Amino acid sequence: MRIPQILMLYGDILEKGLQEALSDPISADGSSHDAGPLYPTLRYHVGLCDERGRPVKALGKMLRPSLLLFTAQELGADMESALPAAIALELVHNFSLIHDDIQDHDELRRGRPTVWKLIGVAQAINAGDLMYSIATRKALLAGADAAGVIIDAATTMIEGQGLDLAFEDRWINVQSYIDMIDKKTGALVCCAFRAAGIIARTEQATIDLLTSLGMALGRAFQIRDDLLGIWGDGDLTGKLQGSDIRRKKKSFPVALITQETNEEGKALLESVYAQERISDDDVARVIALMGSLDVKERGEAVVEGHLKEAREHLERLPLSKKGKELMDELIVYLARREK
Amino acid sequence: MRIPQILMLYGDILEKGLQEALSDPISADGSSHDAGPLYPTLRYHVGLCDERGRPVKALGKMLRPSLLLFTAQELGADMESALPAAIALELVHNFSLIHDDIQDHDELRRGRPTVWKLIGVAQAINAGDLMYSIATRKALLAGADAAGVIIDAATTMIEGQGLDLAFEDRWINVQSYIDMIDKKTGALVCCAFRAAGIIARTEQATIDLLTSLGMALGRAFQIRDDLLGIWGDGDLTGKLQGSDIRRKKKSFPVALITQETNEEGKALLESVYAQERISDDDVARVIALMGSLDVKERGEAVVEGHLKEAREHLERLPLSKKGKELMDELIVYLARREK
Repeated sequence: MRIPQILMLYGDILEKGLQEALSDPISADGSSHDAGPLYPTLRYHVGLCDERGRPVKALGKMLRPSLLLFTAQELGADMESALPAAIALELVHNFSLIHDDIQDHDELRRGRPTVWKLIGVAQAINAGDLMYSIATRKALLAGADAAGVIIDAATTMIEGQGLDLAFEDRWINVQSYIDMIDKKTGALVCCAFRAAGIIARTEQATIDLLTSLGMALGRAFQIRDDLLGIWGDGDLTGKLQGSDIRRKKKSFPVALITQETNEEGKALLESVYAQERISDDDVARVIALMGSLDVKERGEAVVEGHLKEAREHLERLPLSKKGKELMDELIVYLARREK
Repeated sequence: MRIPQILMLYGDILEKGLQEALSDPISADGSSHDAGPLYPTLRYHVGLCDERGRPVKALGKMLRPSLLLFTAQELGADMESALPAAIALELVHNFSLIHDDIQDHDELRRGRPTVWKLIGVAQAINAGDLMYSIATRKALLAGADAAGVIIDAATTMIEGQGLDLAFEDRWINVQSYIDMIDKKTGALVCCAFRAAGIIARTEQATIDLLTSLGMALGRAFQIRDDLLGIWGDGDLTGKLQGSDIRRKKKSFPVALITQETNEEGKALLESVYAQERISDDDVARVIALMGSLDVKERGEAVVEGHLKEAREHLERLPLSKKGKELMDELIVYLARREK
């Protein structure tokens, strides 16, 4: 699938915004001062430079800020007033990635060493904290209402991250899983649309529609991600088949079989996830169990349901005809992508 | 020394404010929802309840919010408008403690298990993140200007924490040390005064004075803390003599001898700090080296210098006579306390 146009519109302006937000601070008296080792690390993490500070182009897809900027412009806001919120949102997302990588012991992100691998866990905690602090300061520039929406979304995202971690110690059903991803993933996606509506000073009914669109898209996006985490084509995703099983994730497919399998299936799951390291054979066994319950097909049906819902909300939004086409291209991509 | 009156004025109102800020969130539809395991942990951390959620009175001294509330009231603000900033500031401070304890591997804080000891490092990272996110949301209620000052101070504090950690790998002189504590400790103390001035809509000259008072007091407070970390009376501080040496802290006394000792002294310091665990004998050797350079007395003189400076700024502030007396009692206490 081709990269949707919306994800290619704002690369330069977002790169410039990130560079500005993450540059070493200047003292009040104009002199540069020792702000410590964290700022270069933040620039490395978002992909503005390599480990030694040399400029590279390794930025992520910047989904959330692109959604925000595009929606805000479509609703009549100018770029300048929407940019601080977009940058804030991308920084919130990246702060969560830095801390996630510590929590999950992930050593690579998009093919590069994670922050904690580079500078140690203790300093990586500070790096994430700093990224979030810069994000909230940037959010303030978007006005109090937009800042409130962004910080509320970040709070919800952190609650979701807390739930996700808590799930490591218990088996969950589909409803608990959905509640968790609505917070962990949905909140920020939703926030991109809501903040856009607020910055464009659109009416409440539109903001409600934007919220519903964001929630539906967040679910489609995350469940699609979960399906790719098990059945994704390794050549495209860069991950092994069943990689989320290997990492003992309680993702959508696992929640579904937990809820629906018989005693035998439960015993299999529990014995596999109880192991320190999961063998290829055990991964295959869990995937076979999922196959017997049509988990992949049912997951795809759930994604399609949320996609349909998102498209219905989109149809009702006061966007231009071209705007709706481009947004439709993006949400279909997010729900059906192969990587 | 008696606890200063300012630290006893706001206990009830701050406790209520913390309880409200850290209560489990309510859904938009009014139902309670699963916000995960983090909120009870935050209430535990600030001392509102014990590990099992049972109410206790174990709050800290709440220096920063007390400074803010007292100063704001003295400058003519009402309590209601100053309270959100005070709570935000206390939450920022507590977020930093949760993450500090992870970074320092500290197992106890004020005699109670630290958050990471209770819920593990991964979830403790989330707990700190959530505390900070709630803090910034609360700061917004104080108005955009006060929120900006609070978030800027938090950013600076995190930079300082980054420097402090970086100092673990190198020897520092007194100037580097001062730059670090101005950020790590000074920024929040300063912010208490500055935010008070902003909330009270006082003139810029007064805010500048408040800033200078805060910086001087921050230094006096932190260097006094460092002296207690080595020569403090264990019966009062709950710590062993030389405990900061045992923890290999690069505190003021260490920065001073690093800067001034001869080759022999340097070799001693380096060999002691290179050890995995530092013996009582080695602690005594470092303290003797400090003794030979009059580090304790010189540290006390530096504290007294900053105290004098703080008192001069205080004298020029437009506070009531009684207000100045009470503030003077507090700053003298912070500079000369024995625990």
